[in-house]
Amino acid sequence: MQQAKARSGADIAIAVMSGPFLQRGEPALISRWRRTKMALEGGVDLVVELPYAFAAQKAETFAAGAVSILDALHVDALCFGSESGDITQFTAILAHRRANQAQYEAHVRSLVRTGISYPKAQAQALQAIAKDTTLDVSQPNNILGLHYLQALQSQGSQAAPLTVRRLAAGYHDQTFATDTIASATSIRKQLANGDISAIGNVVPASTLHHLHEYYHTYGTFHDWERYFPLLKYKLLTMTAAQLASIYEAEEGLEHRVLDCIRGAVSFTDLMEQLKTKRYTWTRLQRLCVHILTHTTKEQLKDVQSSPYIRLLGMSRQGQSYLSMHKKKLKLPLVTHAKAYRHPLFELDHKASAVYYSILPEPLRSLMLKQDFVQHPLRYDETPKAYS
Amino acid sequence: MQQAKARSGADIAIAVMSGPFLQRGEPALISRWRRTKMALEGGVDLVVELPYAFAAQKAETFAAGAVSILDALHVDALCFGSESGDITQFTAILAHRRANQAQYEAHVRSLVRTGISYPKAQAQALQAIAKDTTLDVSQPNNILGLHYLQALQSQGSQAAPLTVRRLAAGYHDQTFATDTIASATSIRKQLANGDISAIGNVVPASTLHHLHEYYHTYGTFHDWERYFPLLKYKLLTMTAAQLASIYEAEEGLEHRVLDCIRGAVSFTDLMEQLKTKRYTWTRLQRLCVHILTHTTKEQLKDVQSSPYIRLLGMSRQGQSYLSMHKKKLKLPLVTHAKAYRHPLFELDHKASAVYYSILPEPLRSLMLKQDFVQHPLRYDETPKAYS
Repeated sequence: MQQAKARSGADIAIAVMSGPFLQRGEPALISRWRRTKMALEGGVDLVVELPYAFAAQKAETFAAGAVSILDALHVDALCFGSESGDITQFTAILAHRRANQAQYEAHVRSLVRTGISYPKAQAQALQAIAKDTTLDVSQPNNILGLHYLQALQSQGSQAAPLTVRRLAAGYHDQTFATDTIASATSIRKQLANGDISAIGNVVPASTLHHLHEYYHTYGTFHDWERYFPLLKYKLLTMTAAQLASIYEAEEGLEHRVLDCIRGAVSFTDLMEQLKTKRYTWTRLQRLCVHILTHTTKEQLKDVQSSPYIRLLGMSRQGQSYLSMHKKKLKLPLVTHAKAYRHPLFELDHKASAVYYSILPEPLRSLMLKQDFVQHPLRYDETPKAYS
Repeated sequence: MQQAKARSGADIAIAVMSGPFLQRGEPALISRWRRTKMALEGGVDLVVELPYAFAAQKAETFAAGAVSILDALHVDALCFGSESGDITQFTAILAHRRANQAQYEAHVRSLVRTGISYPKAQAQALQAIAKDTTLDVSQPNNILGLHYLQALQSQGSQAAPLTVRRLAAGYHDQTFATDTIASATSIRKQLANGDISAIGNVVPASTLHHLHEYYHTYGTFHDWERYFPLLKYKLLTMTAAQLASIYEAEEGLEHRVLDCIRGAVSFTDLMEQLKTKRYTWTRLQRLCVHILTHTTKEQLKDVQSSPYIRLLGMSRQGQSYLSMHKKKLKLPLVTHAKAYRHPLFELDHKASAVYYSILPEPLRSLMLKQDFVQHPLRYDETPKAYS
C-alpha cells in the first residue's frame, strides 16, 4: 500500500475487495465488514466490493470487473503486485501478443487439446510468441497483471498501470518466506490451525486485532472444510442435469463431481478425487463455490463489466474524493444495499447468505440482516475511530 | 403388536415402516436399519419400507401407499390403532359417505373456502352427513383408519380391516399418560432433551437398547432442529419460482416461506411464523421436508400405489412366508438396493442422503453406502441373533 501510494503520488488509495468468495474459489477468511476495517486501518481511503460475478472468476473476468469499477471511479493509476515488478515487461509482451493475435489463439487452442489446463496453455503460447521478452508468465501474479493491462486497454481506461514487486514470498508458498513477509497461502494455513498469534509478525497490528475479534465473536474463520457438509448435502440433492446448469460445470464435469461426492469425507478429499491435469485446483474450487451458491450459466452469461460500485468503507479523504466526483461517476454508487436492485447484486446477497450459513443462530440471522442495513463504514484516522 | 396378532389369528405380522421421513413431516429418530431391528425384536416378521413418495404425505396418500404394499404381499388382514377401537364405526361412516358422496364433497369445498385446513374440513363434513354414527372423526388415528378402509376398497383388496383401541395416550399428548403408556410425541419430547432412560418404562427393552446404541454411535437423534441449518441454507439459495416447483408449495406459500426464513433462528421459530389456520402444522412440516429433499410436484405427480416392495428385515417365519409367496407377489421385491431402479426409488435414496447429512464424516459416507449394499436383516428369535 505504501509503495503503491509512493509510486503513483496518489492523494487517495482505492481498494477493490472481493466479497464473500475469492478468485481462487475459496471463502474469505472473515466478513467483508471486518476486512473493510483492516483495509481502512491499513491506509486505504475507499473500499469498494468486487461483485460475486467477477470475484469468483478466472483471471480475465476478475480483472475486467475490477478495472471497470476503478475506471468508473476515475482513478489515475492502477497498481498491482507482481513477481516481475517491471511494468515495461508487461507492456512489451502485450504488444507482442497483439501483433500475433491469431497465431497466439490458435496455439492456445491446440495446447488445450493436449489436455493441459487453459491458464497453462495461455502461458505456454505467450512464451512461444514472445521469446525475447523477459516476463515470467508462469507466475500467477504476473498473469493477473497482464489481464489488468489488457482490461485497461479494452475498456479504454486512461489509468496508468503500475506494479510493485512482491518480495520473497511466492503466492503458493506454504511457509513464511522471512520473519516479516509471508504469502496469503501460508497465513491461511497458520490460521486454519487456529494459531492467530503465529502471524503476528507478518500482518499489521490492526489486522491481527480484527482477526482475533472475529474469531472470538463468531467462533470460526471461514474455510472450505466448514462448508463441506453443505456442499455435500447440496450435491446429493441435485441431478446431473441440474448440476450441468451451474456455471463452470463444463465438459461432463457434473458426472465426475456426482461420482466422487458420495464417498468424499472432506473437501480436500473431494478435490483430490476431482483433480486432473485438465483442470486447475482453483478452477475446481470455483466450480464448488458456484454449486454451493447455485449460480447458473444463465446468471453469469456475458458478464464483462460491473454495473454498480458497492461502497463498503471510506476514510475522511475518501469521503471528500467521493463528494467531489459524485456527479461524474460512471456507475451507480451503492451505499445502502436495501435501496438498490440488480440481478448481479442479488447474486452478492445470495453469496453472503451462503457465506454466513456456517455460523450458529442467531449470529447467522444477524449477519444476513447487517448486509442489508449497514451503511458504509466511515473511518477517522486521527482518533482512529468509526463514526 | 400382540393385540393385532391375537385378533387376526395371523401366522406372521408384516409392518410397513416409513423411511427417513415420517407422515407428520419429521425426520425419523434413528436410521431405518435400527428401527427394523426394533420391529423384528418386537415381534414383526417382515419389515417393509413405505417409500418416501407415500410416507411424507397427507393421510390419504400415506394409506394408499401402505395398503398397496400389504395387498401385494397378500395379507389376510390389516390392523391399525385408533381412538375408537370399533371397526363397525368405520364401516358405518364410510357407507354414509358413499351414499352422500356429492353432498360431502361440496361441503368440504365450501368449508375449505372459509379458511380452515383441509383435514378439518373433511372431518366437519363427515360429521355433518353422519350425525347418527359414533366415530369421533376429529381424532387423528380414526381419520387415518378411515383412509385405510377406503384404500382397501378402492384398490379392491380382500384384506379384512381390524382396529385396536389406543389406550390412554392421545397421539399429541406431551406427557406420559400412565407409567407404562406414552404417546409418540411425549417420547420424542423426552428424547429431544437427551433423556433416553426416562422412556425405559414405556418402550420395550430392545427398543431402549437400540436407541442407546444409536445415540452412542452417532452422537445424535434426528430431529428437525438438527436439519434447520441445511433448510435455511437451501431456502436462501432458492428463488420463489424454484420453490414454487416443490411439492406442496401451493397458493403462494413459497413467498410466505421466503419472507420468514431470513430472520428465523430455529425450525420452531420458522414454523411459528408460518403457521395459520389454513395450514396444519404437519402440512407445513411436510413442505419443509420436500424443500430439504428438493422433491418437486413433477416427481410426485399422480402417485397412487407403490411400484415396489423394499424388504428391510425378516424373521425366520417371515422368510418362509416370502419363500412360499415369492412367485405370486404383485410387485417386485427389492432386497438389494443397488440392483433396482425406479424414479420413486431414487427419491428414497435422495431422502436417505439428506437424512444422513447431519452426521459427521466419515459416518455420513458410511451410512450412504450402507443403504446401497445392505441386505435385508435376518433375525433369528431363538438365539436372538442376526445372520
